[in-house]
Amino acid sequence: MPAIRGDRLLDDLRTLARFGGLAPGVDRIALSADDLAARRWLVDRLAAAGLDAGMDRLGNVLGRDPRAARAILVGSHSDTVPRGGWLDGAMGVIYGLEIARAFREAGGGPVGIDVVSFQDEEGTYLPFLGSRAFCGTLKDGEIDAARAEDGRTLADALAPLAGEPAPFRLDPTRHVAFLEAHIEQGPRLEASGQKIGVVTGITGIRRFRITATGAANHAGTTPMGMRRDAGAALVRLAAWIGETFPALGGPETVWNIGAMTFRPGAANVVPGEAEMAVEMRDLDVAILDRMEAALAERVAGESRDGVAIAMVRTTLVAPTVMGREIVAALSAAAVAAGHPPVLLPSGAGHDAMEVGRVLPAGMLFVPSIGGISHHVAENTADADIVLGCQVLADAISRLMQNLA
Amino acid sequence: MPAIRGDRLLDDLRTLARFGGLAPGVDRIALSADDLAARRWLVDRLAAAGLDAGMDRLGNVLGRDPRAARAILVGSHSDTVPRGGWLDGAMGVIYGLEIARAFREAGGGPVGIDVVSFQDEEGTYLPFLGSRAFCGTLKDGEIDAARAEDGRTLADALAPLAGEPAPFRLDPTRHVAFLEAHIEQGPRLEASGQKIGVVTGITGIRRFRITATGAANHAGTTPMGMRRDAGAALVRLAAWIGETFPALGGPETVWNIGAMTFRPGAANVVPGEAEMAVEMRDLDVAILDRMEAALAERVAGESRDGVAIAMVRTTLVAPTVMGREIVAALSAAAVAAGHPPVLLPSGAGHDAMEVGRVLPAGMLFVPSIGGISHHVAENTADADIVLGCQVLADAISRLMQNLA
Repeated sequence: MPAIRGDRLLDDLRTLARFGGLAPGVDRIALSADDLAARRWLVDRLAAAGLDAGMDRLGNVLGRDPRAARAILVGSHSDTVPRGGWLDGAMGVIYGLEIARAFREAGGGPVGIDVVSFQDEEGTYLPFLGSRAFCGTLKDGEIDAARAEDGRTLADALAPLAGEPAPFRLDPTRHVAFLEAHIEQGPRLEASGQKIGVVTGITGIRRFRITATGAANHAGTTPMGMRRDAGAALVRLAAWIGETFPALGGPETVWNIGAMTFRPGAANVVPGEAEMAVEMRDLDVAILDRMEAALAERVAGESRDGVAIAMVRTTLVAPTVMGREIVAALSAAAVAAGHPPVLLPSGAGHDAMEVGRVLPAGMLFVPSIGGISHHVAENTADADIVLGCQVLADAISRLMQNLA
Repeated sequence: MPAIRGDRLLDDLRTLARFGGLAPGVDRIALSADDLAARRWLVDRLAAAGLDAGMDRLGNVLGRDPRAARAILVGSHSDTVPRGGWLDGAMGVIYGLEIARAFREAGGGPVGIDVVSFQDEEGTYLPFLGSRAFCGTLKDGEIDAARAEDGRTLADALAPLAGEPAPFRLDPTRHVAFLEAHIEQGPRLEASGQKIGVVTGITGIRRFRITATGAANHAGTTPMGMRRDAGAALVRLAAWIGETFPALGGPETVWNIGAMTFRPGAANVVPGEAEMAVEMRDLDVAILDRMEAALAERVAGESRDGVAIAMVRTTLVAPTVMGREIVAALSAAAVAAGHPPVLLPSGAGHDAMEVGRVLPAGMLFVPSIGGISHHVAENTADADIVLGCQVLADAISRLMQNLA
């Protein structure tokens, strides 16, 4: 098993955190000057590790092992959300760099290590831009149509990269698997006291906007029996969700009513309109189908007493199940390191969700202190960062033995 | 029984509607140029009817019967909400004018008719400004502190009236009762097919702001059992209100959840804070006490699982019960006219609520078409307007017989 060097890993992680560094935290949004400077630094580090490294005209960075015809791809993304943390994405990229070095130092073999940092995973312009381009799943016109919340177009943001090579593409004759390490971004590892999470899959997401339309009326002069109260109708529906979804879902299912608004929204006016946002996530499409069908049926049933309720699905993301052999290798490596893993779905999206649709993929999680991410306070203990990288290296070594 | 003249009544109502007229609708907010012009016109009309009429430095208009030592005060207000209707307030004032004329034409008696139009009932600057000043229930500093939503101060708005007489005051040796007619502003008369409503009292109002504080978390990565969901806590509380209040309240009780907000309010974030506005109205303080106590107890019980719920009472208006003899006289007059009344509480506030705290008061309602008010579409059938005025005149005649 190649031995990774924790000091070198942490040094590189801390150096990367200086690009857009806030101390604490990092502001390195996709295609900003700090993001591109960080990616050029990464190209140099990959080249120094002996890889053929470059950046394409989307800002994807790829380092290829020049001695191997087949390779396991390791990495994540190095862009951040505004005022984000220093580990989200960055850790998975530097794990790739360190593992490439460790395998090279151990002498290499017929299957090499390629390292990647995908562009704009966080969706400043277009979520998963880099990994979707890499996988060939971008649709015509998506890049031309994309723009940031502030109105800036992706096309403008890409202009400084016009002289770079065409976008890198996954090579099915070369790439045999994708491994992405990441902070958990949730509380489960910390709460369990365990150090390694092995991701079983990335959950599907369905979001719904549910609107009720009744009639706004004077709340003092309109008797209770003559009201068309849109707010009360959504309260009944929301309460039903809280009572019913636990039995409809599986043990890992999550759902959320994240937004609720009554209009006009005055204490003395019966709400004439009300709107809420409902989200559900699970790895199992059958569970999501069951929950969606029950919700739709209940929405139809609550459309009464002069209140019409409408439900529109606003988001549909299919689950991505992680490669079975990869889950097994990650789990075996964690056990061998003395840290039996927590097997868990990822409720957040990752580049592995996109790559995993076209190539066997796997993810390793390390604990997030306080479950915090997308925030300058995001952090993980140094020892956990080093442990995670060594477990990932061991898992890759095990996969290579199966492939050899 | 003095006979009112419907044509004269409707002519005056339509003339008044031209001040700030929108065709349809009226925009005559308190102390605007249109409001003051309308009030000066009213002074002239009252004087033409033989009353000692004037406007005070708040813009209250009062016409006193010069031939009587005691008087029944009849009226309402002539200011409107922005883009309001032509009858809200105005109808009650012109009823006063027409009834003063009718009683004078019928020869008068020992108890006269005084007519009033109170200032700013609608609360552009200070709700019930005129009637509270008239009753002596304004507190020190209220006028100096009052300002409109646009920031304009009441003191500035009153400047053009600085040369007018000191505010008129209720005279306990003269005024024996206050009668206010008004459109219903609700759907009950129209729904019942009846033409006359006799108000039993003006409901008390209690409003509460209820806030829940939990923790905002990623809705994909935070397991259901580890959430501190402020939104879900308020949904449970709101659903409990919907299920429990019908049994706690009386037949006329109304309540409302008029506003509900989750923060941060994103589909993929567990709500860390949530807020709702709850209102309850009834004539019976014991019912309001019972509902408030049950709500407070439930709020305490729902403060669990890492979510703290707080309840603050933001509004407390005591009910005003109408004078028993006045309710009887109005009812008898309605029956005599062939229109048995609907006895109902007023869920909206009126000047009679303020005056009724210091003097026996009564209110008569006529139907609102579609229950609409505070809107340019506000209307009542001409025949209903005329009928209401005649019933009010008859009721006043009956009260005078009791007083004589």
